[in-house]
Amino acid sequence: MPSSDSTQTDLLIVGAGPAGLMLAAWACQYDIRFRIIDNKATRVGTGHADGLASRTLEIFDSFGLVHDVLKDAYRINEICSWNPDPDRPDWIKRTQRAKGQPHGLSRYPQSILNQGSIEQILLDHVKAKAGVEVERNTSPQTLDVDEAVCDDEDAHPIVLTLKTHDDGQGEHHTTVNAKYVVGCDGAHSWVRRQLGIAMEGDVTNRQFGVMDIVALTNFPDVRQSCVIHSNSGSVMTVPREGRLLRLYVQFAETKQGEPFDRKSVTSQAILEKARPMFEPYTLDFRICDWQSVYTIGQRVAKQFSYRNRVFLCGDAVHTHSPTMGQGMNVSMQDAYNLGWKLGSVIEGTAKREILSTYNDERRPVAQELIDLDRRMSDFYSQGPSENSSKYAAFRDSFSWFLSGVSVAYGSSSLVAAVPDDHSDKKDVVAGTALRNGANGAVHLNGNSNTIEGRPDLATGLSVGRRIAPCNIVCQAEANVVLLSDKLPSIGRWRVVVFAGDLTLSAQWNAVEELGCTLDGICQMYSRSPKDSHSVIEVILIHSGTHDAFTLLDLHDIYHPDNGDEGWDYWKVYSDDAAALSVGEQSTAYKQYGVDEKAGCVAVLRPDQHVAYVGSIAEDEALSRFFAGILRPAERSTNGTQPAAS
Amino acid sequence: MPSSDSTQTDLLIVGAGPAGLMLAAWACQYDIRFRIIDNKATRVGTGHADGLASRTLEIFDSFGLVHDVLKDAYRINEICSWNPDPDRPDWIKRTQRAKGQPHGLSRYPQSILNQGSIEQILLDHVKAKAGVEVERNTSPQTLDVDEAVCDDEDAHPIVLTLKTHDDGQGEHHTTVNAKYVVGCDGAHSWVRRQLGIAMEGDVTNRQFGVMDIVALTNFPDVRQSCVIHSNSGSVMTVPREGRLLRLYVQFAETKQGEPFDRKSVTSQAILEKARPMFEPYTLDFRICDWQSVYTIGQRVAKQFSYRNRVFLCGDAVHTHSPTMGQGMNVSMQDAYNLGWKLGSVIEGTAKREILSTYNDERRPVAQELIDLDRRMSDFYSQGPSENSSKYAAFRDSFSWFLSGVSVAYGSSSLVAAVPDDHSDKKDVVAGTALRNGANGAVHLNGNSNTIEGRPDLATGLSVGRRIAPCNIVCQAEANVVLLSDKLPSIGRWRVVVFAGDLTLSAQWNAVEELGCTLDGICQMYSRSPKDSHSVIEVILIHSGTHDAFTLLDLHDIYHPDNGDEGWDYWKVYSDDAAALSVGEQSTAYKQYGVDEKAGCVAVLRPDQHVAYVGSIAEDEALSRFFAGILRPAERSTNGTQPAAS
Repeated sequence: MPSSDSTQTDLLIVGAGPAGLMLAAWACQYDIRFRIIDNKATRVGTGHADGLASRTLEIFDSFGLVHDVLKDAYRINEICSWNPDPDRPDWIKRTQRAKGQPHGLSRYPQSILNQGSIEQILLDHVKAKAGVEVERNTSPQTLDVDEAVCDDEDAHPIVLTLKTHDDGQGEHHTTVNAKYVVGCDGAHSWVRRQLGIAMEGDVTNRQFGVMDIVALTNFPDVRQSCVIHSNSGSVMTVPREGRLLRLYVQFAETKQGEPFDRKSVTSQAILEKARPMFEPYTLDFRICDWQSVYTIGQRVAKQFSYRNRVFLCGDAVHTHSPTMGQGMNVSMQDAYNLGWKLGSVIEGTAKREILSTYNDERRPVAQELIDLDRRMSDFYSQGPSENSSKYAAFRDSFSWFLSGVSVAYGSSSLVAAVPDDHSDKKDVVAGTALRNGANGAVHLNGNSNTIEGRPDLATGLSVGRRIAPCNIVCQAEANVVLLSDKLPSIGRWRVVVFAGDLTLSAQWNAVEELGCTLDGICQMYSRSPKDSHSVIEVILIHSGTHDAFTLLDLHDIYHPDNGDEGWDYWKVYSDDAAALSVGEQSTAYKQYGVDEKAGCVAVLRPDQHVAYVGSIAEDEALSRFFAGILRPAERSTNGTQPAAS
Repeated sequence: MPSSDSTQTDLLIVGAGPAGLMLAAWACQYDIRFRIIDNKATRVGTGHADGLASRTLEIFDSFGLVHDVLKDAYRINEICSWNPDPDRPDWIKRTQRAKGQPHGLSRYPQSILNQGSIEQILLDHVKAKAGVEVERNTSPQTLDVDEAVCDDEDAHPIVLTLKTHDDGQGEHHTTVNAKYVVGCDGAHSWVRRQLGIAMEGDVTNRQFGVMDIVALTNFPDVRQSCVIHSNSGSVMTVPREGRLLRLYVQFAETKQGEPFDRKSVTSQAILEKARPMFEPYTLDFRICDWQSVYTIGQRVAKQFSYRNRVFLCGDAVHTHSPTMGQGMNVSMQDAYNLGWKLGSVIEGTAKREILSTYNDERRPVAQELIDLDRRMSDFYSQGPSENSSKYAAFRDSFSWFLSGVSVAYGSSSLVAAVPDDHSDKKDVVAGTALRNGANGAVHLNGNSNTIEGRPDLATGLSVGRRIAPCNIVCQAEANVVLLSDKLPSIGRWRVVVFAGDLTLSAQWNAVEELGCTLDGICQMYSRSPKDSHSVIEVILIHSGTHDAFTLLDLHDIYHPDNGDEGWDYWKVYSDDAAALSVGEQSTAYKQYGVDEKAGCVAVLRPDQHVAYVGSIAEDEALSRFFAGILRPAERSTNGTQPAAS
């Protein structure tokens, strides 16, 4: 149990913004001690970040929190482009009205909710789940790493002194020894500076004024997200929850070296700047919720971690312009990538080596983001153009990346290598080269444990990418469920057995044999005989109807015995087209490109990314895959019950 | 504000089961003083009622609570029939596997959640909304009605003495003067007995043992709802949240006058009774959550209210067998029918006369339920039959009624009369004669204010019935929303203007003229200039695309001005087939049978039942309709701010 009096902790999170809180959300899922500190007295109130990409909503869903987010969020359904009216160029005219994002990209549209609400949802969750609250008014003063013991799994090599303000009544200092530290402390990251990690990139002289107002206007698209390129400058609008409207208004670019008076950018100044851009429509407000000014710049840290003991997430390692609504998303996605790795290493179920994949997986994403941001901010600054009048096509080419769903991690101990001839061509079309690493290398991390799978057996899955949602039918209850709902963020690896056609006896036998192997694997890494404590969970999806056979005839691993609570009836699903036909989407086997007779096996990481695809017969490869990353239960130094604090 | 020291209250609810708490949920929506008492120390724990019909889930949705219910509920997707195996009649065999309910009946399937969870959701809601908690260990001792002042709107004619236990430390007595009292105090209702209202009907000698267990079994359909007719007797199974399974097991019918030893019906006795019915499958349990025994009987109270001052809801006025899962539903639906009427009368916005519709609308529903229950309990008792082997067809004929969505109220001051040639034939097909009243009379309540509408202008709407959900597109935000989401239970009447084709100038002008009339009506009954305080809300749905015209060009009543907060952009919707095409259902005009050019006007009650359908031109009928039921603001004796307690 965490305690502020403890001098030892497994994990210290510095900064309780969206990234730090997302990390805490993961930490709740593990039996570890963690603390989270923040130098501010309260969470963010109004304003700040507000864009929520599809993948971020999927992540909230995986923690059971998406309903809390969506009930107040604004959803971007359409994006409207406005450009100078050819007949009267000082007036604007709508040139395009387009869908917010391509159909089928995610079940969640891009949505908008203020950062404070997001933080509150995570704060409530972490408190309810683990009883942990943010230690506020607290900032680290010194950070020392005992280099000699960094590779000792049980060591607490990081020593920090913390200073806490007591509501004006002075301050007190404490010392913490931590196994791991994560700096989620923003663009001016104190943690990053202690580590001497440099930021690479530039800051421009382009300034945007931004404000959240309740708009009084006759502009027809006030409740749509708009990109307005007028002859008086550019403005971007994003409606928000309640009646708020956010405006990003371009200010003149200052000359090199010329100072920019940020204080002059009042809400009234932003209004005055924006008004001619909205002509012939009126614009006014009486309520302004928040106002700020941004200087456009793109910078990425040289590295995202230090000796796999100290890690950096979010703005601490990448800064860019706010207009794409990406900041909060990529920051939380950084933390989402890191959290389960740290949790399982600290618990002792995974090998420490997997931690190096954080830098290898997330730094290329940040680099891609920065490259894209440069293009987008040039676009906003260049004035009316071919791109701006047909904004949808321009934006669509980025939307797979912006939504976060197409991010694919390169091969490593955690992602099987993809034979060259099976590399996914679609990613390039979708505007991101991430599938093969941002630098074009196929193997970002040449881990010797890397095994090659058979991605050709599931042509609709992309190894390294998150699995797309798909409807399946519960064998026992006959209800249609989303596969994603069976993959919550609780720290478990999943082996999804696409069992093919189980009415064929050879196939049935192969799936039974695989069941024996999986049973062995699950037992090897399980801390308890109870299935619900296993690090690996087996899910079976067959291609027949949901009453094609009797569930209990399958190997027990597909319906584990829970003693007094009987069999587990919620592991076996069918791709039953008839049961799905009530207005549902395409069936799983079609969507994932899996042969309906022969099936295949897919391994999903705790973050729902596809780690491996192979044939049902190659059960030995599965054993090797897990042997490369997990620690057998008997060799655990930590077990499921860490030493009490 | 409610207070247990106050001797006066607007509304006293006796009994905090599902019916009493549903009434309290409504009371929260009004500016009235209410109290809720219960003679028990806690809410229900395990067992008791568990069935949730579709309409009940719609009602929870209208209070914003359906997500809390559904996240844990089991959904009945399929119902399986088992009957004696012809080849070996002492064994059972599946004879049918069928959908839980017909497609398109409701967006919510019949679901199962224990009564205690339902009560907790409502308890939390009432506390959060109004700060009101149930006064426990409290029961009424005397009830007197001052007959002389019953018709005086401001009187508190009901005097009750209440006795409260103080956790074993004795008891104290208080006196309450109430404007209205509602007895939700169960089958042995104390309130009903005080009023001398008799129950009509019979109790049989048929007994059912019921228990909730974690089943240890190899019965294949253990996670499906099953009706099993074996040669050893009948059993009905209903899976529940978690791993629970409910069994209703038929015991032998006792002879007339012969005593039945209820204590002998232990969980072990129920198990022994059930085992031969499951042959050849095994059945056992180690965990039993709850167990009880029911004697089948069907009884209805002669009247549901007394002088429109004291009302009775739920089991207090109807008892029947539990096997249809109707009890909790019809009870909550009683309270849902009554709550808004009481709230608006106490607030002073509606005329007291509308209260008589409670008895007139709900008693026929109870009678229908009892008639149906008689048929169903005969069916369960008669053993294997043609009906039981083809159970789905048998059950489907009742499912519209069982789901609660087809309940239609007869004409009254709250429901316009339907000309005979427009009566809805489908209801009869659906197994209920309720459309014309259970006794076949068209007008259950011959109110002189009754006006006739033009139901032929919306052939897919049924006057008196709840409006079915339909997708529409928000004009300003282009998002697809469910009309139901725009009809929350907040006590407002809605005028839905199906505006037709607004690109036709004659139609545009007619809708503008109607806007003027509606503006006048809204102002007449509004307690405040703020639209959000109006008793009547106007919603417009046109048949064109969502960018066919500019929203702000419409009459202000369709986008009310909110001062500093600008226009209201959330009142105008389109039936935009293109925007809806992303996998959505049929469009609103088609579904509701409304002409896409000429449109029509529909009035919806605060409980979403259709009160009136008329033409856009007949605005005078609208004025007359509201004049019959609402009280103009200046004549209000109570206003929006009742006297402080």
